[in-house]
Amino acid sequence: MSHPHPQLAAPAPLAAGALRVVALGGIGEIGRNMTVFEYDGRLLVVDCGVLFPEDDQPGIDLILPDFSAIRDRLDAVEAVVLTHAHEDHIGAVPYLLRERGDIPVYGSRLTLALLEAKLGEHRQHPPLHVVAEGETRALGPFTVELFAVNHSVPDALAVAIKTPAGVVLHTGDFKMDQTPIDGRLTDLGGFARLGREGVDLLLSDSTNAEVPGFVESEREIGPVLRRVLAGAEKRVIVACFASHVHRVQQVLDAADASGRHVAFVGRSMVRNMNISKELGYLRVPAGLLVDMKDVESLPENKVCLVSTGSQGEPMSALSRMANRDHQIRIEQGDTVVLASSLIPGNENAVFRVINGLSRWGAKVVHKSTALVHVSGHAPAGELLYVLNAVRPSNLMPIHGEWRHLRAHAALAELSGLPPERVVIAEDGIVVDLVDGLAAVVGAVECGYVYVDGLAVGDVTEVSLKDRRILGDEGMVTITVVVDASSGKIVGGPEIIARGVSDEPGAFDECRRLAAKAVEDALAEGVTDRQGLQQRVRRVVGRWISDTYRRRPMITPVVLEV
Amino acid sequence: MSHPHPQLAAPAPLAAGALRVVALGGIGEIGRNMTVFEYDGRLLVVDCGVLFPEDDQPGIDLILPDFSAIRDRLDAVEAVVLTHAHEDHIGAVPYLLRERGDIPVYGSRLTLALLEAKLGEHRQHPPLHVVAEGETRALGPFTVELFAVNHSVPDALAVAIKTPAGVVLHTGDFKMDQTPIDGRLTDLGGFARLGREGVDLLLSDSTNAEVPGFVESEREIGPVLRRVLAGAEKRVIVACFASHVHRVQQVLDAADASGRHVAFVGRSMVRNMNISKELGYLRVPAGLLVDMKDVESLPENKVCLVSTGSQGEPMSALSRMANRDHQIRIEQGDTVVLASSLIPGNENAVFRVINGLSRWGAKVVHKSTALVHVSGHAPAGELLYVLNAVRPSNLMPIHGEWRHLRAHAALAELSGLPPERVVIAEDGIVVDLVDGLAAVVGAVECGYVYVDGLAVGDVTEVSLKDRRILGDEGMVTITVVVDASSGKIVGGPEIIARGVSDEPGAFDECRRLAAKAVEDALAEGVTDRQGLQQRVRRVVGRWISDTYRRRPMITPVVLEV
Repeated sequence: MSHPHPQLAAPAPLAAGALRVVALGGIGEIGRNMTVFEYDGRLLVVDCGVLFPEDDQPGIDLILPDFSAIRDRLDAVEAVVLTHAHEDHIGAVPYLLRERGDIPVYGSRLTLALLEAKLGEHRQHPPLHVVAEGETRALGPFTVELFAVNHSVPDALAVAIKTPAGVVLHTGDFKMDQTPIDGRLTDLGGFARLGREGVDLLLSDSTNAEVPGFVESEREIGPVLRRVLAGAEKRVIVACFASHVHRVQQVLDAADASGRHVAFVGRSMVRNMNISKELGYLRVPAGLLVDMKDVESLPENKVCLVSTGSQGEPMSALSRMANRDHQIRIEQGDTVVLASSLIPGNENAVFRVINGLSRWGAKVVHKSTALVHVSGHAPAGELLYVLNAVRPSNLMPIHGEWRHLRAHAALAELSGLPPERVVIAEDGIVVDLVDGLAAVVGAVECGYVYVDGLAVGDVTEVSLKDRRILGDEGMVTITVVVDASSGKIVGGPEIIARGVSDEPGAFDECRRLAAKAVEDALAEGVTDRQGLQQRVRRVVGRWISDTYRRRPMITPVVLEV
Repeated sequence: MSHPHPQLAAPAPLAAGALRVVALGGIGEIGRNMTVFEYDGRLLVVDCGVLFPEDDQPGIDLILPDFSAIRDRLDAVEAVVLTHAHEDHIGAVPYLLRERGDIPVYGSRLTLALLEAKLGEHRQHPPLHVVAEGETRALGPFTVELFAVNHSVPDALAVAIKTPAGVVLHTGDFKMDQTPIDGRLTDLGGFARLGREGVDLLLSDSTNAEVPGFVESEREIGPVLRRVLAGAEKRVIVACFASHVHRVQQVLDAADASGRHVAFVGRSMVRNMNISKELGYLRVPAGLLVDMKDVESLPENKVCLVSTGSQGEPMSALSRMANRDHQIRIEQGDTVVLASSLIPGNENAVFRVINGLSRWGAKVVHKSTALVHVSGHAPAGELLYVLNAVRPSNLMPIHGEWRHLRAHAALAELSGLPPERVVIAEDGIVVDLVDGLAAVVGAVECGYVYVDGLAVGDVTEVSLKDRRILGDEGMVTITVVVDASSGKIVGGPEIIARGVSDEPGAFDECRRLAAKAVEDALAEGVTDRQGLQQRVRRVVGRWISDTYRRRPMITPVVLEV
């Protein structure tokens, strides 16, 4: 498929013996991954994650997959299968459970342990079923087989879904590290065996499809961390994702080797590392860990903090250290390691933290200056291994923006798959697998669902458009009270402007013009509020445009008494 | 200097025989470069550029250097010397000329030609003096010698400033391309000669100080462009900066070699390339250029467009093509080359354009996938060449954020300069060169000066803070009219909310609470507007916080009639 989809109609009901695949998130974007499979009236959901907002979605906390397409069929959901514990794969589970609380959830031991901590905050207790690589489960008409995959969180799974309509392999997020920290390789042999049995449709991670070659092993970061920690003069603070257990493991090992104690900083880091330690995913040398409150009493060259905040989150401990607004006061000789990716859109925030830390004299090590991060996603070379091992009849690239989906499609063609066997979908595009051929058959509603504060869905594109205008241009409210009987102004005009001009008296002339506009309108016999407000809006808008060449949000209020 | 500067007082007046250096922009940030030199009561300004706003400065068009420190001494300014024609070095000249219109401006031929086009729009005609490498000019007590430097715009200069207090070398922006397109090398020999004579203070470009090694030659992009243009099935659109004459030259040469005609797209591209062509900086093969209106009549594989919009600017031709909102309708088989850097903060905008183009089927080539861009700034390896050639007595890193300044300082130490001879300043920090030693002696006012629409400086941090709240949270205005004599509400409460909730009736309960708050206050004898407004603000704020966990801008208006 070479062109994007025109306006597609809702598809016909699924034919008997066919398998339907719809992504309610995760295709055309990086995040809120959720794919729904339908067979014989029953549904299986793989992943249910959140998307983090971009700069044109101001004030939004999270974006959810759009459940509209399955909302009136939630009873048909056999299960949610989770591939791994990242927020963009599990973060929306509580919101789905709000709509039906007893959906069975399947996932690996670590995935469910991290999910359970989150569900506890929401006081939700769905049936949780731990599964592991090599296992097969019958979930209604779907037979699910799990495969080990390597990723930037331990215990990730790929999912094969077998129905009479055919076999689908959903990779989840993965890469092909050949020397992983936990020795748990992506099961390429298993993929090949499944391929020999026949994979009708491969859904595969496209995040790094544009990146040529192979990703360095996570293991290669170890010596770099050891060198940094051994050579650091004073304290070392390492920031990374709170779920990156293997990265933290390597920090712990480097700290141990350099005689430093480790304290965890940040709520999610403390929580996740406790869980990982209890379940045996994180090996902690005896006596290594200390509490933050005990850090102050240690010599500075015996300290290593492992912290959240690697994306420059303004409230994180690291950002507060950069602003000298934290108990840890950064000094000349301290070393900060950002052992993390730089998610597009976070650059300014991250550089602000790096500059703040540099300003106070810290040495800052980050992925542009040392090998302290490797990606968790398979680049082109590794994707080709999977395509060649599985030899699917059809490919549907998932987990990616258009640039990634196109690049993945090009790789599939290179591997010998005919272009018409590559289905580039988007969120809400309905793909049916019939007689071994996957094809687009229609589309269902699939918009952005915004979480802001306590509410889900009450902020829509209308409010976001208003926020963008308010944020770029500010607001001007003009209030006038009119006496209906005398036809005269008896109160105001009162002008309140925010974000427009900080010069005293800036709106004096504007106020006179607004008063005159109302008086003129009343004299012309305009008495309805709408009409009067329109006059005020026009006069004030023109004056601001002429004076400032700006277009703030103008809200006139005319009240009659 | 290892620590940032505490609150510094204004410096004492400059001692006789000493040289003073103050950056009014460009240190601690990338942009609005402006350095003021003072000797014997006279001032010399090097560069006067703009800074582009970040996401926490919403709605702002430009940020200027802060002229406060020299505003009452503009008559003492001997000249402005411009190092090259980039906006962050010349963009604020019109704003300085607004304050004194006859300041003599010195620069290379291309720099002044591009400046003149800009000044024409402002109807400004200061005395312009073309200078070239190798020339020396006496500007009051300052003897200025110019050196050729290579950068991402032709005809860039470094400036040596000689006074009885000592010799300063200001590199401007530069790199050390050893095979530049125009054969005009950075004059390392000249720097070395000046160094032998004695350079007391080196001000050197820090932008790429964190980047190890050397930058590839601009020339290496040529073969890549030729391959892309020769192999493209249909149209090719190359986006790059409108001042990057050598990049455009290479596109023209590649188009010529592949039998394609070229049209320029975008106002600044058309203007700059006309000027560059007329002055001989751009060599255009006969018959190569066509007008945009003639493009439609050419076969698609004979077309190459050279466009602005490489940073994802929403109004640019390229963004409009990505949205199918442009006469050029992107189709499968078209190729788009982003032959440009990716300025931090622009990632989301640029990826939005790449995704849009990919969606319509265009092949998009960018710097992550092919060598279609090289930086214009010297990385660490090249900075060391300059440090070793000049062997300055003191270094003051310029043109950089803190991370860059610190990295440049570390390079200077590597080259053998004692740490106490490296002065890390910030905007407004005053550095005096006395008896061969450069040292911080105080600070002058140096804030952000915002240009928004027609006005300069009326939007301050107060408005920006309001805009951030409005943009993230929206606004709620509550209007109530009270009869002073009866002590009763006679109009409203009227609630206008924008950017808060799009649910119908969302504020019905809030309106009742606001009315009750006013009635209760009136019953308690509160009659002043401030007091009534405070009650309303408190009640409405609490209700919104409890209901939504949000904190919009709340503006209560109580009017008495």
